[in-house]
Amino acid sequence: MKKLINQRAWFIICFISLSFHFCEGQETDDSRPATTNVRGAEYPRVHPDGSVTFRIKAPDAQKVEIQLDKRYDMVKGLDSFWTVTTNAQVPGFHYYTLIINGVWVADPSSESFFGMGRDASGIEIPEKGVDYYSAKNVPHGEIRSKWYYSKTTAGWRRVFVYLPAEYENSNARYPVLYLQHGGGEDERGWPIQGRANFIMDNLIAEGKAKPMIIVMDCGYAVKTGDTVNTSPGTQQKGFAGMMRQISGFEEVMINDLIPTIDAAYRTKSGRENRAMAGLSMGGMQTLVITLDNLDKFSYIGCFSGAGRPGAVDFDIKKEYKGVLSDSLAFNNKVKLFWVGIGTNEPQMMYKGVYGFHETLTKAGIKHVYYESPGTAHEWLTWRRDLYDFAPRLFR
Amino acid sequence: MKKLINQRAWFIICFISLSFHFCEGQETDDSRPATTNVRGAEYPRVHPDGSVTFRIKAPDAQKVEIQLDKRYDMVKGLDSFWTVTTNAQVPGFHYYTLIINGVWVADPSSESFFGMGRDASGIEIPEKGVDYYSAKNVPHGEIRSKWYYSKTTAGWRRVFVYLPAEYENSNARYPVLYLQHGGGEDERGWPIQGRANFIMDNLIAEGKAKPMIIVMDCGYAVKTGDTVNTSPGTQQKGFAGMMRQISGFEEVMINDLIPTIDAAYRTKSGRENRAMAGLSMGGMQTLVITLDNLDKFSYIGCFSGAGRPGAVDFDIKKEYKGVLSDSLAFNNKVKLFWVGIGTNEPQMMYKGVYGFHETLTKAGIKHVYYESPGTAHEWLTWRRDLYDFAPRLFR
Repeated sequence: MKKLINQRAWFIICFISLSFHFCEGQETDDSRPATTNVRGAEYPRVHPDGSVTFRIKAPDAQKVEIQLDKRYDMVKGLDSFWTVTTNAQVPGFHYYTLIINGVWVADPSSESFFGMGRDASGIEIPEKGVDYYSAKNVPHGEIRSKWYYSKTTAGWRRVFVYLPAEYENSNARYPVLYLQHGGGEDERGWPIQGRANFIMDNLIAEGKAKPMIIVMDCGYAVKTGDTVNTSPGTQQKGFAGMMRQISGFEEVMINDLIPTIDAAYRTKSGRENRAMAGLSMGGMQTLVITLDNLDKFSYIGCFSGAGRPGAVDFDIKKEYKGVLSDSLAFNNKVKLFWVGIGTNEPQMMYKGVYGFHETLTKAGIKHVYYESPGTAHEWLTWRRDLYDFAPRLFR
Repeated sequence: MKKLINQRAWFIICFISLSFHFCEGQETDDSRPATTNVRGAEYPRVHPDGSVTFRIKAPDAQKVEIQLDKRYDMVKGLDSFWTVTTNAQVPGFHYYTLIINGVWVADPSSESFFGMGRDASGIEIPEKGVDYYSAKNVPHGEIRSKWYYSKTTAGWRRVFVYLPAEYENSNARYPVLYLQHGGGEDERGWPIQGRANFIMDNLIAEGKAKPMIIVMDCGYAVKTGDTVNTSPGTQQKGFAGMMRQISGFEEVMINDLIPTIDAAYRTKSGRENRAMAGLSMGGMQTLVITLDNLDKFSYIGCFSGAGRPGAVDFDIKKEYKGVLSDSLAFNNKVKLFWVGIGTNEPQMMYKGVYGFHETLTKAGIKHVYYESPGTAHEWLTWRRDLYDFAPRLFR
């Protein structure tokens, strides 16, 4: 113990910054700290009914709010702690925001997750009786962080690659799913918020999905010569600026990423062994890229991103370079065309995807249409999408 | 273009949350957005002299501050943007905090980095003429995210494993360095803030360091049956609570992690092929664990974490189970004992490490002592430590 005592001061220095998390609480109910909290943070706490109690010390703030499913006013106590307990939340992962005197920031008690264009707070509400996205006692694959050079963007890019548990000790080759995040997120979305590795570990262990490689890249890519001007006041705004941020992604995928992955790993190349899926913005990117490159992809997954918001129809003969105009040829060529939406997503999104599905049906385009019951434009919808989509691949 | 127009509404929905980053700026100088900013964020901006301009919109805040090298008051402009330009900063990576009406939070314009016990903001100040921790055009190793079950903690743990670029296409076996983060950080510290993979890629490409496997685990581990009570008000505070959070780490390393790594990868096992190093709290853990297990380690690195703060001496005969009492035996057994500190670290830390070094010298204990000029208890000190330490390993 002497040795420890001697190190006491060191550890205190090392830990001092942690100590503010060990705040005192008043509750003695059966709530539990959210699994998405940082180490040692007692709040936010999730109650058995899915409601959440938030708590933060802010002696000098005039107004403190939480933006979750809606905006909640926190109430200041005599101890200078502001607290609020929310309505019961839908299970799954929700981004949320702490608002201090009108400024939207991340809650220091929560882990941060890159979403909404910033490192945002997130909270996991347990889903009773559901464990397909939990870390279970099954063989676990690895997620590899790989850096590769993109000629398209003239820069180094980080991509995450999931390799099934059996990969390391086998000589087999594997098919590949390219899986994209949504707008305001990046390559961290699927491995962290989406739990793609646990979903696949569990599906593969149960024999429900074929072992496959999953490639998770960042959907943003600006072509060289089209560099975003970062000097103040010149940043392009609105739709044009948005489009420019993803203008180079199709070229990155086709010319830089796919060759990199096929060279680096034991992949089965060829369209019959290659799938692409994505959510929201990534679903739109998937639709455009796969339909532009049907010689490279034969499995397509659009998660909450297909068709046009609010539109109930689109010109199937003309759009997507007309590849959907000949249903017979398309059905023969594409092995899986999967379209999904959550029933609680914004009506404009729901109508757009549902309308897209109906148009495909009328035109005789074979596809799978899936609705996630009771979920919004959020990660639980997309975890369910992957859970339904992945088992259908490479059959 | 029709297709894009049709998708316009989608993209706007997808990107809407990004748009607030496209804020207008006033400056027209040669400052640049920090490389640690989130995509699209124009502030903070780093000036050529290393000073930083911070800017945030907060119409309803009474007081906005930045805590970096010191606390800076931000000034509110007529446009409701608060701004401040700091003193010139030392190069390297610095954590910083945005303070809104007294509440310490992360800056939404910055990427978050787990440090100080929370997802904190960080800013990278370029170091002129130095590129050993940059992504260069050399073969890049992979960092693998591996989940393993710990009997010690009765839970799943994530560990990051760096494998050199040549690993994938060779059958060779490699020595292993176990590399630990500091207090209030976790396994993300070395791969992200530390840039350990780029440092090693560059050293290996230049032939300065031997290809090796680097294992980066989380230093926190609570033994089963010693579970931290998370119910409100019962969280242990102070030194005891701190110690309990790492009480199980030595057992995790020896009984769970090392066997996992040796089973999963082509390692050279045996003490002559195993090193351990760590920074701050991780340096103390390294000292305790390696000296407790000299049958398993022959290379030891203490980065800003050795000795006792402020102490100029310690009882070398009695401490660490007396393994340092016989210098001849120790010098024969340990191939490298490396101790480092930054010259601008807090005096108590500097004195502790310097005193430790002097005591070793007096006792005839062979060791390397390194001082990082002009750096504090921060990541640039530890990047330099790794850059000096790694080439000395496994010779």
